[in-house]
Amino acid sequence: MVSEKMKELGSNRSVIRELFEYGKKRAAEVGSENVYDFSLGNPSVPAPKSVEEKIKSLLETDPTVLHGYTSAQGDANVRKTIADNLKKRFGASVSPDFIYMTCGAAASLTVSLKALAEEGDEFITFTPFFPEYRVFVEMTGSKLVPVKTIDGTFQIDRDAFEKAVTPHTKGIIVNTPNNPSGVILNPDSVKAIIEVLEKKQKEYGHDIFLISDEPYRELVYSDTENPVFLNLYSNTILCYSYSKSLSLPGERIGYIALGDAMAGKSDVYAAICGAGRALGFVCAPSMMQRVAAACDGETADVSVYRENRDLLYNSLTEMGYDCVYPDGAFYLFVKTPTANAKDFSDKACEYDLLVVPADSFGVEGYVRIAYCVSTDMIKRALPKFAELIKEYK
Amino acid sequence: MVSEKMKELGSNRSVIRELFEYGKKRAAEVGSENVYDFSLGNPSVPAPKSVEEKIKSLLETDPTVLHGYTSAQGDANVRKTIADNLKKRFGASVSPDFIYMTCGAAASLTVSLKALAEEGDEFITFTPFFPEYRVFVEMTGSKLVPVKTIDGTFQIDRDAFEKAVTPHTKGIIVNTPNNPSGVILNPDSVKAIIEVLEKKQKEYGHDIFLISDEPYRELVYSDTENPVFLNLYSNTILCYSYSKSLSLPGERIGYIALGDAMAGKSDVYAAICGAGRALGFVCAPSMMQRVAAACDGETADVSVYRENRDLLYNSLTEMGYDCVYPDGAFYLFVKTPTANAKDFSDKACEYDLLVVPADSFGVEGYVRIAYCVSTDMIKRALPKFAELIKEYK
Repeated sequence: MVSEKMKELGSNRSVIRELFEYGKKRAAEVGSENVYDFSLGNPSVPAPKSVEEKIKSLLETDPTVLHGYTSAQGDANVRKTIADNLKKRFGASVSPDFIYMTCGAAASLTVSLKALAEEGDEFITFTPFFPEYRVFVEMTGSKLVPVKTIDGTFQIDRDAFEKAVTPHTKGIIVNTPNNPSGVILNPDSVKAIIEVLEKKQKEYGHDIFLISDEPYRELVYSDTENPVFLNLYSNTILCYSYSKSLSLPGERIGYIALGDAMAGKSDVYAAICGAGRALGFVCAPSMMQRVAAACDGETADVSVYRENRDLLYNSLTEMGYDCVYPDGAFYLFVKTPTANAKDFSDKACEYDLLVVPADSFGVEGYVRIAYCVSTDMIKRALPKFAELIKEYK
Repeated sequence: MVSEKMKELGSNRSVIRELFEYGKKRAAEVGSENVYDFSLGNPSVPAPKSVEEKIKSLLETDPTVLHGYTSAQGDANVRKTIADNLKKRFGASVSPDFIYMTCGAAASLTVSLKALAEEGDEFITFTPFFPEYRVFVEMTGSKLVPVKTIDGTFQIDRDAFEKAVTPHTKGIIVNTPNNPSGVILNPDSVKAIIEVLEKKQKEYGHDIFLISDEPYRELVYSDTENPVFLNLYSNTILCYSYSKSLSLPGERIGYIALGDAMAGKSDVYAAICGAGRALGFVCAPSMMQRVAAACDGETADVSVYRENRDLLYNSLTEMGYDCVYPDGAFYLFVKTPTANAKDFSDKACEYDLLVVPADSFGVEGYVRIAYCVSTDMIKRALPKFAELIKEYK
């Protein structure tokens, strides 16, 4: 008597959640110091001090305003601050009137997709991809079309992408730095994406939107520049979240932004407002809107992630693991020495190493290691990784 | 190229929002002290001091936990506190495992509806009703079926209700104290609802759910007791929000609860978890979850609402207005002296009195006056109301 689809969605734990629960059980048996849980993408560094300071100063202001409804789009001053910063930091031209505050990255995506989707639409994404993309796209009645990237580098395969675009393609979802691989799209990939989209828009005579999912925008450790799609493709819908940059994943705060260059931005923005209303969002959490704006552009101390990346990548590579070099985010993607990633993950569990088989991310033969953990834990885990790979030599 | 339905939803301002915007414009012309805006249901009293104190004490705790993801259902301690309070305050038996923390009342409703709705389903509600019910129900692809209540008292018309229940009825939405009328359902109405539902469940051989939308539960000013459906009907889905009780409407925090007595609660709860995931909620705002639990059962100082109700009801009745006596919430429902409520609202605007024509609430010939304003504003508005009614004598 309930929606079968929703029941299934609520009953089936993700592989990630399965591993995390196993880790908690195992920690109770052998002690948490002996379990090396690399399963979850939960920031390990605290929010910057300015978050706490801003909250304290906001508590001195009128509580009926502070905790009151903001407009559905978000507080006007908050949107102005964000628009100014997008200009200052990225040179992007965005009016505050085309920023929509959201309850985090997931809401940025569901609201954008619901705003765009009509019967029979398709949305493309590139492998490997965050598995919830499928849930969000299918919620709107549309179809997710995963397109294979170049194995090992996960850069765009232009031909494969071009073949996948059809008259039903309403948009594509791009995520750089990428969860789960940590890869940043290089200039060739960016060029391929934009050229194909521009060409197909002309060919079909209608818009194709680029949804840029950017929660890891500030988590870049190499000199590699992360592309700013807002400046490169006029039909870009920027979906942002402060979860990772400010270490506020539980607070659910982010935004959607449309650039001045988008011709149909009034219609898209109206549909975004309608979708937010229909899905039940009302407004983004009011106090956190102000905190996010005050701290916009700052980051938690993410230097530990870089340290972790270097330690883990260098050590595992030296041991003989085949790792994809991650420029950002806090994930390391490792080719499994046996074809079946689940078998490898199970074997790793015997060493109390919890790593996620990547099949649900749309690629086979890889595991994801989330290194948003203490450097000390990584150091203690390294001998285990060394023992593990010996099993395959 | 966007969803036409979402675009329309985002473009069409509600009557309430139209009036509110007009009021702001008018205030700029004649001074805000000369505009009497009764359009919005935005709490006028500050959150209790304990909210601020709890936030401050939480800021002394580990920020990676405080601002980190909670489980999708909500923090375990938060759910335990709420379950304990439901027992203590209402004698309701609810396990923490069947509480789901939400981003406020709207989210409680959209998640519940999405969890239940299948192709062709119908949801009943009673007039007058909160207009967003239609938006939320239609978002799931279901149909909203409004059932007329007894004019003037807005209590349940048992025959009309019974006739409206069909094999397609998946659930009904009940809201007491009611927005927009302030009416509390009396024991006869409650009995009628439950008897009809029990009878029809048997007749059709399937569940019919009662979604109890209770944001105004704590805003009761008369001796009239507000029904606790959780104790009266086993297929009750309690949808709660702290927006009105704690004056935190912008913070988006509430919950869904299923009672121990619900036979299919495991399936319903799984579907609720699935729906929250599909709609993009991830988890309710983490810090506010803890604040809500710590202050659960407290209220902002709502005595001013009672004072406002008495002043407004008594004065308008004395002037000759036909008012529905409100036991709770912060709305007064007034019969318009002319059949067309929009005409009356327009005429009231000439006196700078902003009152909402109730057509969009599903009844004709009424206006809603939101008295969550300062008592002083009401006092200053009374002579205007007196002049206004003279036009119709």
